[in-house]
Amino acid sequence: MKTNKKKIINDPVFGFITIQSDLIFDLIEHPYFQRLRRIKQLGLSCIVFPGANHTRFEHAIGATYLMRLAVNTLRLKGIKITDDEAEAVAVAILLHDIGHGPFSHVLENTIVEGIPHEKVSALLMEDLNIQFDGKLSLAIQIFKNEYTKKFLHQLVASQLDMDRLDYLRRDSFFTGVAEGTVGSDRIIKMLNVRNDELVVEYKGIYSIEKFLIARRLMYWQVYLHKTVLSAEYLLVNVLLRAKAVVLSGGALFASPALHVFLKKKITIEQFSSTETYKGKSMLELFTELDDNDLISAIKQWVNHEDKILAYLSDCLINRKLFRIKIKDRAFPKKKIDEFKSKIHDFFEVDENHYNYYLIQDSITNSAYAGSIGKINILMKNGKVKEINDASDINLSNLSQTVRKYFICYPKELDIK
Amino acid sequence: MKTNKKKIINDPVFGFITIQSDLIFDLIEHPYFQRLRRIKQLGLSCIVFPGANHTRFEHAIGATYLMRLAVNTLRLKGIKITDDEAEAVAVAILLHDIGHGPFSHVLENTIVEGIPHEKVSALLMEDLNIQFDGKLSLAIQIFKNEYTKKFLHQLVASQLDMDRLDYLRRDSFFTGVAEGTVGSDRIIKMLNVRNDELVVEYKGIYSIEKFLIARRLMYWQVYLHKTVLSAEYLLVNVLLRAKAVVLSGGALFASPALHVFLKKKITIEQFSSTETYKGKSMLELFTELDDNDLISAIKQWVNHEDKILAYLSDCLINRKLFRIKIKDRAFPKKKIDEFKSKIHDFFEVDENHYNYYLIQDSITNSAYAGSIGKINILMKNGKVKEINDASDINLSNLSQTVRKYFICYPKELDIK
Amino acid sequence: MKTNKKKIINDPVFGFITIQSDLIFDLIEHPYFQRLRRIKQLGLSCIVFPGANHTRFEHAIGATYLMRLAVNTLRLKGIKITDDEAEAVAVAILLHDIGHGPFSHVLENTIVEGIPHEKVSALLMEDLNIQFDGKLSLAIQIFKNEYTKKFLHQLVASQLDMDRLDYLRRDSFFTGVAEGTVGSDRIIKMLNVRNDELVVEYKGIYSIEKFLIARRLMYWQVYLHKTVLSAEYLLVNVLLRAKAVVLSGGALFASPALHVFLKKKITIEQFSSTETYKGKSMLELFTELDDNDLISAIKQWVNHEDKILAYLSDCLINRKLFRIKIKDRAFPKKKIDEFKSKIHDFFEVDENHYNYYLIQDSITNSAYAGSIGKINILMKNGKVKEINDASDINLSNLSQTVRKYFICYPKELDIK
Amino acid sequence: MKTNKKKIINDPVFGFITIQSDLIFDLIEHPYFQRLRRIKQLGLSCIVFPGANHTRFEHAIGATYLMRLAVNTLRLKGIKITDDEAEAVAVAILLHDIGHGPFSHVLENTIVEGIPHEKVSALLMEDLNIQFDGKLSLAIQIFKNEYTKKFLHQLVASQLDMDRLDYLRRDSFFTGVAEGTVGSDRIIKMLNVRNDELVVEYKGIYSIEKFLIARRLMYWQVYLHKTVLSAEYLLVNVLLRAKAVVLSGGALFASPALHVFLKKKITIEQFSSTETYKGKSMLELFTELDDNDLISAIKQWVNHEDKILAYLSDCLINRKLFRIKIKDRAFPKKKIDEFKSKIHDFFEVDENHYNYYLIQDSITNSAYAGSIGKINILMKNGKVKEINDASDINLSNLSQTVRKYFICYPKELDIK
Repeated sequence: MKTNKKKIINDPVFGFITIQSDLIFDLIEHPYFQRLRRIKQLGLSCIVFPGANHTRFEHAIGATYLMRLAVNTLRLKGIKITDDEAEAVAVAILLHDIGHGPFSHVLENTIVEGIPHEKVSALLMEDLNIQFDGKLSLAIQIFKNEYTKKFLHQLVASQLDMDRLDYLRRDSFFTGVAEGTVGSDRIIKMLNVRNDELVVEYKGIYSIEKFLIARRLMYWQVYLHKTVLSAEYLLVNVLLRAKAVVLSGGALFASPALHVFLKKKITIEQFSSTETYKGKSMLELFTELDDNDLISAIKQWVNHEDKILAYLSDCLINRKLFRIKIKDRAFPKKKIDEFKSKIHDFFEVDENHYNYYLIQDSITNSAYAGSIGKINILMKNGKVKEINDASDINLSNLSQTVRKYFICYPKELDIK
Repeated sequence: MKTNKKKIINDPVFGFITIQSDLIFDLIEHPYFQRLRRIKQLGLSCIVFPGANHTRFEHAIGATYLMRLAVNTLRLKGIKITDDEAEAVAVAILLHDIGHGPFSHVLENTIVEGIPHEKVSALLMEDLNIQFDGKLSLAIQIFKNEYTKKFLHQLVASQLDMDRLDYLRRDSFFTGVAEGTVGSDRIIKMLNVRNDELVVEYKGIYSIEKFLIARRLMYWQVYLHKTVLSAEYLLVNVLLRAKAVVLSGGALFASPALHVFLKKKITIEQFSSTETYKGKSMLELFTELDDNDLISAIKQWVNHEDKILAYLSDCLINRKLFRIKIKDRAFPKKKIDEFKSKIHDFFEVDENHYNYYLIQDSITNSAYAGSIGKINILMKNGKVKEINDASDINLSNLSQTVRKYFICYPKELDIK
Repeated sequence: MKTNKKKIINDPVFGFITIQSDLIFDLIEHPYFQRLRRIKQLGLSCIVFPGANHTRFEHAIGATYLMRLAVNTLRLKGIKITDDEAEAVAVAILLHDIGHGPFSHVLENTIVEGIPHEKVSALLMEDLNIQFDGKLSLAIQIFKNEYTKKFLHQLVASQLDMDRLDYLRRDSFFTGVAEGTVGSDRIIKMLNVRNDELVVEYKGIYSIEKFLIARRLMYWQVYLHKTVLSAEYLLVNVLLRAKAVVLSGGALFASPALHVFLKKKITIEQFSSTETYKGKSMLELFTELDDNDLISAIKQWVNHEDKILAYLSDCLINRKLFRIKIKDRAFPKKKIDEFKSKIHDFFEVDENHYNYYLIQDSITNSAYAGSIGKINILMKNGKVKEINDASDINLSNLSQTVRKYFICYPKELDIK
Repeated sequence: MKTNKKKIINDPVFGFITIQSDLIFDLIEHPYFQRLRRIKQLGLSCIVFPGANHTRFEHAIGATYLMRLAVNTLRLKGIKITDDEAEAVAVAILLHDIGHGPFSHVLENTIVEGIPHEKVSALLMEDLNIQFDGKLSLAIQIFKNEYTKKFLHQLVASQLDMDRLDYLRRDSFFTGVAEGTVGSDRIIKMLNVRNDELVVEYKGIYSIEKFLIARRLMYWQVYLHKTVLSAEYLLVNVLLRAKAVVLSGGALFASPALHVFLKKKITIEQFSSTETYKGKSMLELFTELDDNDLISAIKQWVNHEDKILAYLSDCLINRKLFRIKIKDRAFPKKKIDEFKSKIHDFFEVDENHYNYYLIQDSITNSAYAGSIGKINILMKNGKVKEINDASDINLSNLSQTVRKYFICYPKELDIK
């Protein structure tokens, strides 16, 4: 029976990946996890990087594969990890992203406002724990950092977790931005544990420096690519307008689950409650959503009678993306007013609709800064130092937040 | 103005691809072509090969890139190709797949029955030709093999066309089946023209042998992978059942375009006619369809009141794929009857619905056989020989049709 | 102490390779094995493929790495392999090429005439066995196919041994002939044992077909590349002439070991005997020879007073290679006579020296033919079939010997 | 005639490289350039990285290939480069390393003391210029930075020259240190020229950061790898001892050219003079030296009667490398004295021979510091800024010299 489940997965990034645990196999087969096949890892980035169609499904499996390598490495170095812990930490990384919705960050700004995906992941893991008779309890403890061996949590969520080691390499592979690749092999071989903290052995220090620089490169070159930003903010506006249309009683094409999310203002409490809509809990409805619902609906909205919705949807589907301008400081009010006046003239909309045509925001690269902990280096003398102190180049700037301001507007408004 | 359009595309397979012609750039921007971003190159293969989410968009651009290499190589060897011809042959390969619908081969067996995608491609190219003031005329001639220089058509459609050189390499890359990769660089460097026919220079003969074997490997290992087959035939049954539901007056969730295609029996004449449905021509409606509509709809059908549709949709979405058995000869009637009886007992459906639960068909690898022409080798003495005669291994078997028979049925019916 | 020896080797082909056994580590450190660093895997092929400077050292380590993978795979499938056997089969593959001299095949035709490298490997392994207190006894049994478990020998020497799986992939990597690469990962994953014979599981059949074709491609495109052939036969002639010079009492620059081999006609008996020259046994002297001695000496011979030796050496060192002509049948005597007459006129040498300037021989690809056993496929029904019977393409031609005839001569003799 | 010379070279790093100029082809064929086939790019690094057997020959050809890409890119951006200049800058990069001797840096510290390889390259280029009837004049001007268009020289020798772009990528490829790879494609695509200076366009800034970090990583991880250092300094001592033996009248095995270099103290004047030794000029003798002479000789010296030479040679050939200790500050005199005393006891040599057994020196990474110019970034506003000012991370530390001190000594002297 067991051997039946020893499945081999062909992964273009890591080659053959063998699933070695029945529990992992069964979790992969579960509809909650299969749903990840239908959610792109990088959302709309494929608009700029046509190869970036890889999904959260592959990423989760890749990260689980790296977790196995890391556990093996640590065990070879004498770090005690029981078989139960090894499986639990693998389950934790497998499911770490299970709460992601389609176009995750976009949704978090629109239809599941204020509900971070980590919370949803935790809720879904608890739901699965019930379905799997408590077999996920240890994994959940590790995921929530409530387990005694803290370093296990760090393998799941920290500056050097298996999540990052997989996604940087995978995103680099599929976008074709070869420079972003990281030496996940070597970094994992250099891992160790001191005082219950994950550390990197001294001779891995150059790999870490390179890892940090590669991550930075991926941020500016891929994750915060200006055309991708423009597309994502356009999608935000499409959804905000669709919500407005629905709330004002308008009809629009949408899958039932999407319709609920457009109509209701959802709170995290509702996610946890047993209250139902159309016979389903909010959490259940959430797991019915994926990229397909949004794209399929927006294609229809191109023909919607609401001209704002139709215009924005057409821009997104047919790649008439907004022009984006990025600066080191905020755009002056005069410039903004100028644009508003043009919007007024060109689109004949009133003041409270200007924001559909003029996006103003700022971005930071802080997403990868030091907030979630440090990278510690195990020096030759056995002491542990933070990377900034261990490296003879100054990496402190890497953890400084750089903020950039941008505006997006339809190309029609461009001044020649 | 021109330089504005010199776009560089990051392709994970070939690296940086520069778009060098304004016409090509504008065609890529057109909604017909952008639609290809939403159609997976390998349909449901991602069910087995999780990395295989690449789209027809990337493939078409990759093939166009190879076309440029091929044209440069031939010109260096003294073959005359004018600038207009070079652009036209690039346009022809760029658009060669534009008529593909979602899950192409599945659709050709269900909702656009009997209408091959090549025909639709030709119709769309003619439509584009009108929109682009006749600039595609030469490309269309080459595509239809109506142009005097026959070898240009062979670069678009033949045993060694740029289509195959791209898709074998690309599919190998994204599936992770590294063995399927072909030496597109070397094969292109070995191309030449004799008597208006594409030929391969003698010293490329081993590359061609390897190309043929790699293609064969990709057929059996990827394109005709048994689990993929099972999934595709399941999708056929889902769509056939959805059609039956609609035709008998049932309601179901579907995007408007999909609904039309489920309701109507479409002929190629209707595709060419100006007749409209919901205000749009059939061809227009077709270009509104993509993978998202099907997946988004089928997810809803899981809850449909028609129990057959609901069952089949659930099997597909939640990966409860049918068991598949493959044999060298047809399954005996006794075996089939046994299954039918079990279906009757287990699913409580009547006789004319058995086929929803029991799929019987055969496959051949003939798709890659010699029907669309030969591979010719330019011998050292200047003569041209077919590869079978030029090679000292016997490749004739490669072009023989191998037929295999299979049945698929729900796992619940499995006899232990 | 043990951990001290857990060395990690950076291999460009397979990534990090960990040496897991102390015995293997110590053997690698032994001067006999270190010598392999100074012997190129592909001899003079670097004259055509400038990247092909890889050595027998790396190859032996790569093959040992693959052996570990193979042993692990077989064990997972329930094949019993004890720890001693696992180490012995690894040692056997590590040392399988240890008897190779510089430019191996060339030497076997000149200075160690008639002594195949396998014999020398066996002698050196026995010598090492004494030095290592009998720890190599089991490895030697396996190497010589004298051990009961026959399949272990097949992992070392057969149609699908780890030797081939490594060298095909490695040679492909370093020559840049990407098409020659084989799916060693997948082939190893498909290995199994039936009736004490190595077999390949049915679904690996396409990988085997591709392996055979890739091997064939490597033979004709790399190993038997005509320019490489010309260079190797030139080297044969250089050495034959140097021997003649030494035997007739002439002085020439050579390292002491090389000088002995030029002066003596060596037999396999002498290799095994305790007789010494310059205080060393023949076997010891042999292990002092490597590529450097030959190249360093031949560079000097360019200035030798013997004009034939000087001419041939100059041709080799300064890449004035002989023209080579290859045909499907033997060259007619008339043609040969014509060349001889030209040699007479141009080089002013007498009849018994013509062969230095006119090389005549034939080559076959039989090196990879079926002589050393078959590839057996484990069919789905549990039976074992030879690949030729199992595959639906006809591979029999692949094992047929193809013979080609060639002549080489100085370019100065070319008729315009 | 011309087409005859359109040679295609298979390069494992860049794929097919076409030689497009007759002059380049003829220079490659010249014995001076062919000699580079016999000089490893990374000297003794192969002792640690067994794949690193690549030669200066391949590197020079790879750099010439990149030069062509760079020239094409710049021309597309409107930078004027004549055909003569394009060929000259290609010749300059092809020949930039032609003056390297075997184990270059080692030799510069021993047998050609104080003569940098760039000087020898210039002398050999001038010699070739005579042989090629002045066709290299422009190349030499560019090489020496005496040509008006300064940016052409920068393509040959600067922080972002084609030399570095090739060697970092190539060394990374052959050592298997995948992290060291640089995005040569992207960097070249980002090159431009302003005020006759090579600049990098703003959006390439992250690639440059990564380039700098990758280079740093390669320095510490490969070029200054401690075991490689130990081997190279051992080789220095072997050669110093061999010189001492020769100068004191001892006989030793060596090729004639090597013997001259061991016997004479060579000055740069002698390299330029017409004075001859054994009938050859010093420059001629130098071009007869390569890796083979040194290795072949040192193997013999293992048996030399001078016990110091024999000992050191044995350590090198049979990989009994000296233990190396590296520190941030100089080793205290007490420690050094302790070692000297042990040497005295163990090796029974007198004081003035201690240095053969105890190596003391320091290394810096300054080799890649800012001394040979800056990397300039072309900002979006058209201004040019140095990378340190343009980047929002602080790279200044990268150009600071880091000095490390080390000692090497025989393992026998190790205190447990």
